[in-house]
Amino acid sequence: MQSSFEIDKSDVLKVKNAVLAGDETLKTVLKDYHASEIAILFERLDKSEQQHIINLLPAEIASEIISEMDEESHPEDLLFKLHPDKRTEIVEELDYDDATDIISQLEDHEQKEILEDLNEEDASNIRNLLTYDEKTAGGLMNTDLICVNINLTKKDAIDEIIRQSEEMEEFYTIYVVDDNEVFKGIVSLKDIIKAKHNAQITELVKIDAVYVHPDTDQEEVANLISQYNLTSIPVIDEHQKLLGRVTFDDVIDVMEAESTEDILKISGVSEDEELSGNWVEAVKSRLPWLVINLGTAFLASSVVRYFDPTIKLIPSLAAYMTIIAGMGGNAATQALAVTVRRISLYDLSDKQSYRTVLKEFTVGLINGAANGLIVFLFAYFFDGNPMLGLVIFLAMTGNLVIAGITGAGIPLILKRVGIDPAIASSIIITTFTDVFGFMLILGLASKLLL
Amino acid sequence: MQSSFEIDKSDVLKVKNAVLAGDETLKTVLKDYHASEIAILFERLDKSEQQHIINLLPAEIASEIISEMDEESHPEDLLFKLHPDKRTEIVEELDYDDATDIISQLEDHEQKEILEDLNEEDASNIRNLLTYDEKTAGGLMNTDLICVNINLTKKDAIDEIIRQSEEMEEFYTIYVVDDNEVFKGIVSLKDIIKAKHNAQITELVKIDAVYVHPDTDQEEVANLISQYNLTSIPVIDEHQKLLGRVTFDDVIDVMEAESTEDILKISGVSEDEELSGNWVEAVKSRLPWLVINLGTAFLASSVVRYFDPTIKLIPSLAAYMTIIAGMGGNAATQALAVTVRRISLYDLSDKQSYRTVLKEFTVGLINGAANGLIVFLFAYFFDGNPMLGLVIFLAMTGNLVIAGITGAGIPLILKRVGIDPAIASSIIITTFTDVFGFMLILGLASKLLL
Repeated sequence: MQSSFEIDKSDVLKVKNAVLAGDETLKTVLKDYHASEIAILFERLDKSEQQHIINLLPAEIASEIISEMDEESHPEDLLFKLHPDKRTEIVEELDYDDATDIISQLEDHEQKEILEDLNEEDASNIRNLLTYDEKTAGGLMNTDLICVNINLTKKDAIDEIIRQSEEMEEFYTIYVVDDNEVFKGIVSLKDIIKAKHNAQITELVKIDAVYVHPDTDQEEVANLISQYNLTSIPVIDEHQKLLGRVTFDDVIDVMEAESTEDILKISGVSEDEELSGNWVEAVKSRLPWLVINLGTAFLASSVVRYFDPTIKLIPSLAAYMTIIAGMGGNAATQALAVTVRRISLYDLSDKQSYRTVLKEFTVGLINGAANGLIVFLFAYFFDGNPMLGLVIFLAMTGNLVIAGITGAGIPLILKRVGIDPAIASSIIITTFTDVFGFMLILGLASKLLL
Repeated sequence: MQSSFEIDKSDVLKVKNAVLAGDETLKTVLKDYHASEIAILFERLDKSEQQHIINLLPAEIASEIISEMDEESHPEDLLFKLHPDKRTEIVEELDYDDATDIISQLEDHEQKEILEDLNEEDASNIRNLLTYDEKTAGGLMNTDLICVNINLTKKDAIDEIIRQSEEMEEFYTIYVVDDNEVFKGIVSLKDIIKAKHNAQITELVKIDAVYVHPDTDQEEVANLISQYNLTSIPVIDEHQKLLGRVTFDDVIDVMEAESTEDILKISGVSEDEELSGNWVEAVKSRLPWLVINLGTAFLASSVVRYFDPTIKLIPSLAAYMTIIAGMGGNAATQALAVTVRRISLYDLSDKQSYRTVLKEFTVGLINGAANGLIVFLFAYFFDGNPMLGLVIFLAMTGNLVIAGITGAGIPLILKRVGIDPAIASSIIITTFTDVFGFMLILGLASKLLL
């Protein structure tokens, strides 16, 4: 029995040393780890050490490690570099969906090379799954499942389930089809066992099962599994034929990936940037956003240029204007984060959208006035200039109101017109608070102080 | 059969009208919806409409709706306002973990009122669960589970499972204990059925099962369920006694909540702010961060003040310095988002942490030079001042390097000393890029241009 597993340096060192010490030692050391733990250890091992371990272990365990490896550790490269016989053994052990995920990351000629070595059934199953978009139910689904005919009796169904489950480690739900493979519903093993001796599947089947189509977006699949607390969801084609199933563990991975996307996009990072990617990828992903921001920053700075004469007369405005703009940017980021996350988790009605903007208006007004008051007092006592204080108070309040309205309003509008609201990144939103912040403080100063 | 469910206005209107049309119509309309769908509809109904529907439906369905309601819709208030008899009926239908989650949100005297009406068994189970911290395995666990003695035969075990599952809608794993209720391992229903007629549980039990303790943090529980692809994980006490289980669907909710926390914290919003909370809560959650930011903004603006004479001589510096600071803030936010998310999903070694900072240094250098070049050209052709262009080029490059180092380095250091890295919100990080940005451009200008 084991409790939670956290990798530390000693584990990594132990395995690294065991690789050097020879195969017998290595085998003994690896026995202490679950396949998914070795997959985590792999993140800290060299490519050659990874290959050594995969070659040493039986295909059954090696395939589990490869399927559990994070996609950012590139299991496809490890797999492709193995001896063809070992590679084939491992692929044949993998679930079809996992094999497809890994193989899909390779070049076309590499994919072909792997598929040619497989037996006909595996090859055609994987070829079929490779046709679906990675981010849809088709891309996530597994064609291995337990499926019984609706006309079976309890006894025959149990025999059938035992037969089909021979090759399968886990199944959660039993799918029911008719003679034409048309999906009819689901039944649980528990209900079959509890049923009367002479029961028929047709009496036990739950017909109002939730399902998806192969082109259903992965986010929608995740939402359904989460909403209905399902261990798996069937995938059916346009003729109601059962194609496969997506299981809850795939969905957990999808949800993590979608959350990462939200966080990155809202911060002005391309959703395609791998968290552990190298600097070349990072520059490619971020430079375009920064150049866009440079354009908007010029826009904001042109406001400052326009008021150059005012700043020349009251130089302390240069210091205060950075405070107004910065505070606006931060308040806008707050409103943006709350709104984007809310849109991502819930479906908002028109009334709720309107109320959200109204709420952020109120929050901006109060937070603006509170911070404005502090700055007013500072200007009054430090600069001895109450009129300057008034200008700053008004600019702070106004800019935080604009921050609230744009931080909540822009993602809501984007969602309405069908654009991903997370694209309303802080980079876009802070343009508004920069431009309006500078306009407010410098414009008010020109009117009231000169 | 039904496909994915998306609420639209017509659903809400149909139900609202049915509430007015009378109970028979309402019953007919509600038949078309799954309990979890009604729970989503509730987000758009008034409190009185919610109560009307709950009172109309049998406790079995009403309890499902209440357990599926989002916590931000406050199911506890709805529950507490029901007639005591109806309330008791509903609570007795709820799973213990769901009942505990809902009741825990009420005031102490309200909790007492509800618990007093329950039967002794339910009341003591819920009282017990209420003692655990909401964000631990104890707070998430359910005490309802299927559990067999390790000494049973196949036949007796199946009888026992059927008996225990009478009251339970779903179970995924069967837990095995000895005569002293000490946890011994798990067994799947499939393995029991497939076993030989005279098999014993002791031959079938899988003994290396992963488990947690009641005080294990919910994030750790979620990681284990996700890492080992478990449908449920047992919770055991310090004497290895089985207390309950946490199921995958609770963990999906936890993961959503943790991702929301990450996004909010990184944007300078308190993790306690409810996404759909009112403006009072939002002000409470955000004002403290803004006031802290105001302090740091004063710090940055004091740099500007220090260089007042320089700005007076070259007023266009006031415009350029906002560009340098703004670009630094955005680049830092990018580096921060990638690093915080990476820390949250993976465990980084010292070497990997070091490489991360090095990578962000390189990214900052390249993105800084690229943007610096654009601004240099602008200063050269627009202001006709190549030396000013050089100053801006150097300041941009320097500030984006600082952005990369702090955006990656500060969360990594916080993690090292045991502080939540997401607290290194963009508000904190942009202080560095503001202060250093102003120092670089104004300091260099003073040296090179005056």
